[in-house]
Amino acid sequence: MLVVMKAQATAEEIQAVCDHIEVMGYRPHPMPGAQRTAIGITGNQGEVDRGNLEEMSGVAEVIRVSKAYKLASRDVKEEDTIIHFAGTDATIGGRNLAIVAGPCSIESREQAFAIAEKVAASGAQFFRGGAYKPRTSPYAFQGLGLDALRIMAEIRDTFGLRIITEALDNESLDLVAEWADVVQIGARNMQNFSLLKRAGRLRMPVLLKRGMSATLDEFLMAAEYIMSEGNYEVILCERGVRTFADHTRNTLDLSIVPAVQKHSHLPILVDPSHGTGKRDQVLPMARGAVAVGADGLMIEVHHQPEKALSDGPQSIYPEQFARMMDEIEQIAPIVHRELPRGIHVETAATKPHDSSIR
Amino acid sequence: MLVVMKAQATAEEIQAVCDHIEVMGYRPHPMPGAQRTAIGITGNQGEVDRGNLEEMSGVAEVIRVSKAYKLASRDVKEEDTIIHFAGTDATIGGRNLAIVAGPCSIESREQAFAIAEKVAASGAQFFRGGAYKPRTSPYAFQGLGLDALRIMAEIRDTFGLRIITEALDNESLDLVAEWADVVQIGARNMQNFSLLKRAGRLRMPVLLKRGMSATLDEFLMAAEYIMSEGNYEVILCERGVRTFADHTRNTLDLSIVPAVQKHSHLPILVDPSHGTGKRDQVLPMARGAVAVGADGLMIEVHHQPEKALSDGPQSIYPEQFARMMDEIEQIAPIVHRELPRGIHVETAATKPHDSSIR
Amino acid sequence: MLVVMKAQATAEEIQAVCDHIEVMGYRPHPMPGAQRTAIGITGNQGEVDRGNLEEMSGVAEVIRVSKAYKLASRDVKEEDTIIHFAGTDATIGGRNLAIVAGPCSIESREQAFAIAEKVAASGAQFFRGGAYKPRTSPYAFQGLGLDALRIMAEIRDTFGLRIITEALDNESLDLVAEWADVVQIGARNMQNFSLLKRAGRLRMPVLLKRGMSATLDEFLMAAEYIMSEGNYEVILCERGVRTFADHTRNTLDLSIVPAVQKHSHLPILVDPSHGTGKRDQVLPMARGAVAVGADGLMIEVHHQPEKALSDGPQSIYPEQFARMMDEIEQIAPIVHRELPRGIHVETAATKPHDSSIR
Amino acid sequence: MLVVMKAQATAEEIQAVCDHIEVMGYRPHPMPGAQRTAIGITGNQGEVDRGNLEEMSGVAEVIRVSKAYKLASRDVKEEDTIIHFAGTDATIGGRNLAIVAGPCSIESREQAFAIAEKVAASGAQFFRGGAYKPRTSPYAFQGLGLDALRIMAEIRDTFGLRIITEALDNESLDLVAEWADVVQIGARNMQNFSLLKRAGRLRMPVLLKRGMSATLDEFLMAAEYIMSEGNYEVILCERGVRTFADHTRNTLDLSIVPAVQKHSHLPILVDPSHGTGKRDQVLPMARGAVAVGADGLMIEVHHQPEKALSDGPQSIYPEQFARMMDEIEQIAPIVHRELPRGIHVETAATKPHDSSIR
Repeated sequence: MLVVMKAQATAEEIQAVCDHIEVMGYRPHPMPGAQRTAIGITGNQGEVDRGNLEEMSGVAEVIRVSKAYKLASRDVKEEDTIIHFAGTDATIGGRNLAIVAGPCSIESREQAFAIAEKVAASGAQFFRGGAYKPRTSPYAFQGLGLDALRIMAEIRDTFGLRIITEALDNESLDLVAEWADVVQIGARNMQNFSLLKRAGRLRMPVLLKRGMSATLDEFLMAAEYIMSEGNYEVILCERGVRTFADHTRNTLDLSIVPAVQKHSHLPILVDPSHGTGKRDQVLPMARGAVAVGADGLMIEVHHQPEKALSDGPQSIYPEQFARMMDEIEQIAPIVHRELPRGIHVETAATKPHDSSIR
Repeated sequence: MLVVMKAQATAEEIQAVCDHIEVMGYRPHPMPGAQRTAIGITGNQGEVDRGNLEEMSGVAEVIRVSKAYKLASRDVKEEDTIIHFAGTDATIGGRNLAIVAGPCSIESREQAFAIAEKVAASGAQFFRGGAYKPRTSPYAFQGLGLDALRIMAEIRDTFGLRIITEALDNESLDLVAEWADVVQIGARNMQNFSLLKRAGRLRMPVLLKRGMSATLDEFLMAAEYIMSEGNYEVILCERGVRTFADHTRNTLDLSIVPAVQKHSHLPILVDPSHGTGKRDQVLPMARGAVAVGADGLMIEVHHQPEKALSDGPQSIYPEQFARMMDEIEQIAPIVHRELPRGIHVETAATKPHDSSIR
Repeated sequence: MLVVMKAQATAEEIQAVCDHIEVMGYRPHPMPGAQRTAIGITGNQGEVDRGNLEEMSGVAEVIRVSKAYKLASRDVKEEDTIIHFAGTDATIGGRNLAIVAGPCSIESREQAFAIAEKVAASGAQFFRGGAYKPRTSPYAFQGLGLDALRIMAEIRDTFGLRIITEALDNESLDLVAEWADVVQIGARNMQNFSLLKRAGRLRMPVLLKRGMSATLDEFLMAAEYIMSEGNYEVILCERGVRTFADHTRNTLDLSIVPAVQKHSHLPILVDPSHGTGKRDQVLPMARGAVAVGADGLMIEVHHQPEKALSDGPQSIYPEQFARMMDEIEQIAPIVHRELPRGIHVETAATKPHDSSIR
Repeated sequence: MLVVMKAQATAEEIQAVCDHIEVMGYRPHPMPGAQRTAIGITGNQGEVDRGNLEEMSGVAEVIRVSKAYKLASRDVKEEDTIIHFAGTDATIGGRNLAIVAGPCSIESREQAFAIAEKVAASGAQFFRGGAYKPRTSPYAFQGLGLDALRIMAEIRDTFGLRIITEALDNESLDLVAEWADVVQIGARNMQNFSLLKRAGRLRMPVLLKRGMSATLDEFLMAAEYIMSEGNYEVILCERGVRTFADHTRNTLDLSIVPAVQKHSHLPILVDPSHGTGKRDQVLPMARGAVAVGADGLMIEVHHQPEKALSDGPQSIYPEQFARMMDEIEQIAPIVHRELPRGIHVETAATKPHDSSIR
């Protein structure tokens, strides 16, 4: 259910409707738009009783949302969600392409800084690097953990790059939330509903990767899990799906981009590194992703991929990353985008968000 | 790496080898077999240094295990793993077919008892019922939680049935471990490595469902995660995979049964209810599962499936369950199995295992 | 559209309705049943005009068939289709399990006879052997062609086995129709609609294999292509589909068996040899196929599989075939089937059917 | 096997090597390159005996080709294959993007001309329109056949557009070869090896669509079937594959484009219309295809898609096609391509190639 407020509704009227929804036993989700605010209602099993919502002051109309996902749906919020990073000009969603780059795993301070310097110089605004790695084998390198988080915090201080890294469970979620700017939930955890709900109690952006065999609806429902807890800053990310095809490690499904954009207001990035598993596929598929209209890219870059502790064969060299940036910069205007080169930090590089679990 | 002890090796010799492995910085996993004990070694990154293991007293040979999974592999343990339930004659693995039956979700004490009585009467030894439900939508029925666990404990006391139910996260894992006999890890959590490791620190059986797009290797590696923490009582369960086919909800891949049995000593059940999503597919596919050699079945039964809060269309009626039991009883001897009807509780129905996390 | 005749309708009344349907510009397909005859109507684009069909003598009712497939549907013919082989007691469909066995390719008279003798001794009623092989590579062995057909005709004369072999195109279809008892259309040709129509103009059984990524509807629509030309003796065959799973060459989808039997009256066999691509999977999956209710099996047997020119790794040894027959003989009564051992040829072994294209 | 001739080898030396290969019992396939000619050898079962080829005059070296596909491989021909259309400046492959546009089916002269005029005005060089339609149902519209071919020949005369249309079987192949400029083999016939070989005996371009579940190797092997008969003008076309994903009709696998270009010299187009089955996906995926580096596009355009006899929901409007052309024209230079607008016919618009079967 969705309460659409009148354009001229006051903050008091909006608050009054929210309060009333709580009294009814549901949860209000105010979604401010360019024209007017809409208030999503969740917390119901089955049909919401409309009560006298329609008669309240400032209410334009009350609409049933037919999709299984509500808060993630364009029915509830027509404008694209744009995620801002306080103290900087960086955004995810909207006109600017967001470029996330870095190694699969943080292996050492030297390695991380060497790569960060390169990707910053080429104009990335976000740095990625695994601190906690979901590995198929219990005997494989599992990441440096907190040490990696500390290294990435230094990288933020040094280069201004905002940090995105994956959380695997409650413990790492709390730490990642404390140290990073965006918490990543990986493909294998896309339906770890407990972790999604906990991420939903954060008040900071969450990047949610599509599961290896997730349908569009399941993907948006996973986002809905996060949003239903009050965290509306969800970034989706396509990273390839499982099919019979064997020329790439996964089959990168670029058609999910326009499909998401039709049904949801959330931004969607594309990860051609995991999506193909092959270095020589990354540049062409990165171009393709921007051309179909993705809101940005997530790219594995390594200065010495042959020595990487994980995913070396899919990591591109810094020179390739620089070329990729040049190519997508040219494609950007064709899809009404811009590629901002780098990030401008306006204030002291302190971690701006509130990472406590609500 | 695997240390194979001589047939006549003493308990002291085995202990000395284990101690030595720990001194080397690794973790020993003694696996007693019918003829002799083997000791798996984990905890290494890369190659294990053999040291002077081969010269130790009682050691027959030291073997490199080439598979990515070690403890789950038949190379490490040739005999089938049979899981016993203390104080009863119930087993999973080995000659007896293990039959797990019950509703998708525990909805009420009345519903649970009505179904438990029926499936016990038809000869099930295990009762399943969801207390914590992994639901695609955050707004769907999420299970009765602890109340459901309490109801199932009563069912154990009343009918002797051993209880299998799913844990979704740390909190529910601890509770399920406390109240149930087998902790289930669902398909969506098959690569929730943090949860797998925590389940590995239990000393009670874990039923691990195959992920929707998991390969055989990934499935066995997920089992390896549990085993690498010292919990060797892992039961695998095929429940259908994602394909293009649309006549069933998932495609039940019965060929995984002989494939698992070739490569691993772990028992494997088949769940034709989730595996097909259709009531009229359950009986034929249950027969098929037993005929290919599965160690047992996991079946959703509901006395009023049209009123079920979840998965009604795939739940069979108690009468169908009774017919299924008759049919598979006849197939069992052809694959050198027996179908024990019901469970015999030899001692007071107390929960026998130690559910504390090691 | 379907015209259901009254139980007591005379042959003249049936003929009159068929004539009238032709006058209306459509094609009548009389389908005699145990109780009464139904007449399918095809040849229409869009809705059939009922005209005065309902008022004709002997007509019980006129029914719209809502499925895309008509003649293949149980709506049109409720009783299972049973295909008889004149002069013998062999059938496909109905109570008896039909067992088709033989090598992937006919390589020589000696090889074919050696295998035929063995499978006949174990009780197969049908012999399979490739004369024309659909090979992924143009440089691979393409089959002995007409020589292979002649060898198989000798096998029919010697052992009584009825012959099933694949046709790839018009030329081989005509030859196979002349020499064999059942024309096989392979998985790669399941949507070769031109070949299907030509097979539909034969008046002899056609075995249609499921395409590698065919849905149930597409599979039945392919059968409909054959039937729409007047050939109602279609035998379906599941042989595995393409998925991400890599422990078998294809994923054998046994759930298609009950799905076909629910929606269609056509018999369905299962081919676990192509369906798994692995020798040690053939016996378990053959048992599984019979247990789910398949009308029979198609099995690759080779006396020297290591020397086979094609598909050696999936061919079982004659001794394994004998064991398989023993196992499925025991499963058969549980699913209300019988396994007749061998074929009884009542009359001189001449090729009984009319292979001319209508 | 591949014989690489010296750069300065004469035509006589090349001919002498070809003759010698024939004497050896194999088939020579001379492949002229920018620097030097290579001669592929096929017709062997197993290893080719090198004989004294290496000692022949003009021979630089003799190389074993390890891939299953030989003539389609870049090992045999390093330069991209560019297909020219005599009497025009149109090409497929090379620097120019080739744009094929038109309706799914030719429905009438008026419809075809209305669409052709529009797509020609927007700069397409090729016109597509189904004359013979592979329809899942035998009761669906099957195409206008020869009448459609005649209409398209008129379109060639009127607008200069070269004609691409699908052949389903021998009969339609002969007719399409006679009337069209490019013979299309559809996805369902990608492994109709008999049809492939017959298309290989033509001396005119063949457009080969990827099968719904074809791997890269199978796709290139299907091209090899055509090439092994001496027809080297093969154009590949990606049109989506079968997966579990349900937000598009098929999953368009753009990663096949760089994969083909790495392993083969053949040009590859992308068909986002069939590849997605949704009108609002066509433009973004067309942009994506050009950005990943495809050699061109195949697009369904209809002036009244809501009235189309087939595939209306995936056909775009002429205005959308015009916008698409503008967009990809801007992307082209980024991937070192050009979009020529329209086709220049230099000589009288007669059908230039020899359509007789060799």
